[in-house]
Amino acid sequence: MRYTLEQCCALVEEQLAQVDFAGKQPANLYDPVVYALGGGGKRIRPALTLMACDLFGGDMQAALTSAVAVEIFHNFTLVHDDVMDNADVRRGRPAVHKRWSESVAILSGDAMQVLAYQYLCRTAQTEILPDVLRIFSETTLKVCEGQQYDMDFERRQDVSIEEYLYMIRLKTAELLAGSLKIGALCGGAPAPDIDRLYAFGIALGLSFQIRDDLLDVYADPAVFGKRLGGDILSGKKTFLLLTALKRADEATRKTLLHIAADKTMADEDKTATVKAIYDALKVDKAAEQMVETYCKEAIEHLDMLPLQDETRKDELKKLATVLLKRNK
Amino acid sequence: MRYTLEQCCALVEEQLAQVDFAGKQPANLYDPVVYALGGGGKRIRPALTLMACDLFGGDMQAALTSAVAVEIFHNFTLVHDDVMDNADVRRGRPAVHKRWSESVAILSGDAMQVLAYQYLCRTAQTEILPDVLRIFSETTLKVCEGQQYDMDFERRQDVSIEEYLYMIRLKTAELLAGSLKIGALCGGAPAPDIDRLYAFGIALGLSFQIRDDLLDVYADPAVFGKRLGGDILSGKKTFLLLTALKRADEATRKTLLHIAADKTMADEDKTATVKAIYDALKVDKAAEQMVETYCKEAIEHLDMLPLQDETRKDELKKLATVLLKRNK
Repeated sequence: MRYTLEQCCALVEEQLAQVDFAGKQPANLYDPVVYALGGGGKRIRPALTLMACDLFGGDMQAALTSAVAVEIFHNFTLVHDDVMDNADVRRGRPAVHKRWSESVAILSGDAMQVLAYQYLCRTAQTEILPDVLRIFSETTLKVCEGQQYDMDFERRQDVSIEEYLYMIRLKTAELLAGSLKIGALCGGAPAPDIDRLYAFGIALGLSFQIRDDLLDVYADPAVFGKRLGGDILSGKKTFLLLTALKRADEATRKTLLHIAADKTMADEDKTATVKAIYDALKVDKAAEQMVETYCKEAIEHLDMLPLQDETRKDELKKLATVLLKRNK
Repeated sequence: MRYTLEQCCALVEEQLAQVDFAGKQPANLYDPVVYALGGGGKRIRPALTLMACDLFGGDMQAALTSAVAVEIFHNFTLVHDDVMDNADVRRGRPAVHKRWSESVAILSGDAMQVLAYQYLCRTAQTEILPDVLRIFSETTLKVCEGQQYDMDFERRQDVSIEEYLYMIRLKTAELLAGSLKIGALCGGAPAPDIDRLYAFGIALGLSFQIRDDLLDVYADPAVFGKRLGGDILSGKKTFLLLTALKRADEATRKTLLHIAADKTMADEDKTATVKAIYDALKVDKAAEQMVETYCKEAIEHLDMLPLQDETRKDELKKLATVLLKRNK
């Protein structure tokens, strides 16, 4: 590995700083783009693209435009998701639709989707552009599908854990895996290696999302960028809730299913009640175990990737650790 | 001209009928796409793409995927615009956000944007793909800019007619001109001819949008797909309103500026009052004149296009006429 995780993130930040929409008109279209991209995300997805490229000794500068495209797309989904989920806060700041308006959030998100494609098309590696575009579009469509399942599940009371895993695979894991795939393509990786990295990304993504579900209830409030218990209040069918529903007796099941819709109960009481049920049913332990299982699976895929220099994998393993430990 | 306008539209319909998302899961993501594309639009933009290609004797089958991409993008903008403008009806049917929900409209619109890019990438003419993508992204970004200006203008009382013309150029004319440009590229047109067709499209689009402003107030309600006076009620700064504001005395100006926000007045009274002012100030005549002027300018650009067979332009001229006469 010639580039460390930190160096990859720095490259992305540097490139993003040059994404210069500040002062572009109309301000209500471009200022929210600058705001959304400047929110201080962990840049995990573009870092995955760069690290995958570096794994095969690829040209990092050439991969950088695709990495930025992935990051712009990811932030676009956050802007629109916050509208759909009616989430007020993102990374400790007002969400775009709260800072401006819903219409501004919808439209600047639309523009970000175009900007992501523009960055993809900036690649100097025109010979792989059709493949990169194909993977990118397939991936982003899956992210849309996942978000729709997530919203559909909010109204359903019979969501199985298998359905949940399929949903988070689409909504979260496919973008991590797609980011790696695009990076590997930029690095000139052989097809079987690309598939292996993809499998690593999927397992990593599943692990990451279940950890995210855990953090919504069990994170340290001082470090967590948003309000704790958001998933509970919005009635999201998280791994915690679905596991609790599976383990609970009939009365507790009823409480869990109706708490999000209960208008008489204060928000703090709701989160406290649900957390007490989770604690009693030890669903946090079940979730931690799942995080562990998928994380192991991810590392196994990485181990099976045939590279001459095994140490090249170290930084990707480090990223997996960082990803799964953050905010704990 | 080997293909008539009707034949171009038929080709587009046929291809769109094969855009088979019916039954695809999740239904709440793909059913709205089918619904939006099946609303019976006039298919003007993809027809422009095909006719521009045919003008230079290009391969119509090869251009068809780009034409469909343009139509999918256009319908995506309608789905999101209806959310932002809070418009209930589109082409005589409930808008997507009314038939389903706002969240569904946002997300299925996002998916349509991806689908448009997927169609562009399906082209068999891979050698022109980077150029087609560049024009498409530049165009769609301008459409976003235009929509943002349009929304910004609703809150401003000092919008000039020049600013209005710049806004409709971005919001409406650029997509017509971009559709032509992409078609000309598919047809292998030389660069100066592409620029000429683009200029034709811009003038046509300006003419078309001012006509659209006219129709909002003066259309035959029996033929018009939506409620008359929508622009008046939403406070849109249309050509009619801006011309009226310019011509009116101070008292009438005040009435015009405050009518959209007036909560005591019934909708029918609002539209009747504004229409009476428009009639008295003859703004409809001014608008008709502008429609005429830009239409003439468009035809002049077409006349200056150097083609061996002049009759090839007949169908594009016919389309210009159809476009500007519809719903009259």
